[in-house]
Amino acid sequence: MARASKREQIAQAALDQFHSRGFHATGINDITAAAGAPKGSFYNHFPSKEESVLEALSRYGAGLRFDILTTPGQPPLDRLRAHFEFLGRATAVTGFSRGCLVGNLGAEVADHNEVIRAAVSRNFDGWAAAIGQVLAEAQEAGDLDAGLDSGETARFILSAWEGSLIVARADKSSAALDTFFRMVFEVVLR
Amino acid sequence: MARASKREQIAQAALDQFHSRGFHATGINDITAAAGAPKGSFYNHFPSKEESVLEALSRYGAGLRFDILTTPGQPPLDRLRAHFEFLGRATAVTGFSRGCLVGNLGAEVADHNEVIRAAVSRNFDGWAAAIGQVLAEAQEAGDLDAGLDSGETARFILSAWEGSLIVARADKSSAALDTFFRMVFEVVLR
Repeated sequence: MARASKREQIAQAALDQFHSRGFHATGINDITAAAGAPKGSFYNHFPSKEESVLEALSRYGAGLRFDILTTPGQPPLDRLRAHFEFLGRATAVTGFSRGCLVGNLGAEVADHNEVIRAAVSRNFDGWAAAIGQVLAEAQEAGDLDAGLDSGETARFILSAWEGSLIVARADKSSAALDTFFRMVFEVVLR
Repeated sequence: MARASKREQIAQAALDQFHSRGFHATGINDITAAAGAPKGSFYNHFPSKEESVLEALSRYGAGLRFDILTTPGQPPLDRLRAHFEFLGRATAVTGFSRGCLVGNLGAEVADHNEVIRAAVSRNFDGWAAAIGQVLAEAQEAGDLDAGLDSGETARFILSAWEGSLIVARADKSSAALDTFFRMVFEVVLR
């Protein structure tokens, strides 16, 4: 297999550093060091730190396994649960650290950088739309109260997930995520 | 009225800076400048940036108006709604910026500083306990399904609030908070 290009190595290192350290705590030199690239080589591949975090956000979104939401042959609410279970396992293996890069940038950077704010907002919108589609399918299948607003319920579930990740990071425990699953699937979507 | 002491001015400036900029983006010099205090005077009053953020968290918590949750003569769920409406107005007046200092530190710092992580976790625990008490009172009053676990429901509502604030910051709009109120009071607590 061909070695990943230097640009690819830097882009992956940027995602990893932004996700684990946060935006402000990540220096350009942290990224090149993690990529095993020379100091100063960052700007051969990215015009700015902002551009690299936008690409990190795009790469992060591609790893959120939205495909699980549309697995053929699975009941809609099972797909929704499997999607969040995948994300829950991903945060459990890091000891309930890192959280969600979309939410992290929303909390740390959205007030201070309009380009990053807009990218975070678009990510939330797309994610909520995908969840809303699954809820609408559950309603069509008769598995969910047709009186719920599927779009609003989807946005609420996504917000609850983002907040639950923060509490899980603060507690370094799965408790907030366990609560998310019980409350979403046994109360909100009952 | 006596002028606020220099320490008081620095402590208030620290809260304001940490809340608006975040932890890493706030330098000690930002705090002294905002307080109108000489560079270098910070360490006459606080041993470390960490100590000042712990005090900021304590001051922030004192402003969350937990008293609204226990207003005499008000039905429990009205008190719960009024508490979050107060917090919603506080974020609306800043143009849906800043979010919640507890959640911000959870997202930005909890993975990297054990003392701040523990303080964030304690803040969430205390806040959820206060909400859970109101929900238990609503159950006693017959205003809420006695089958709900009041503690778990409280923790879920708090997580949903924290996530909704992040989405509101990303959208610079009240939409996520409006969704929070409808989903919490019309679906979760129906």
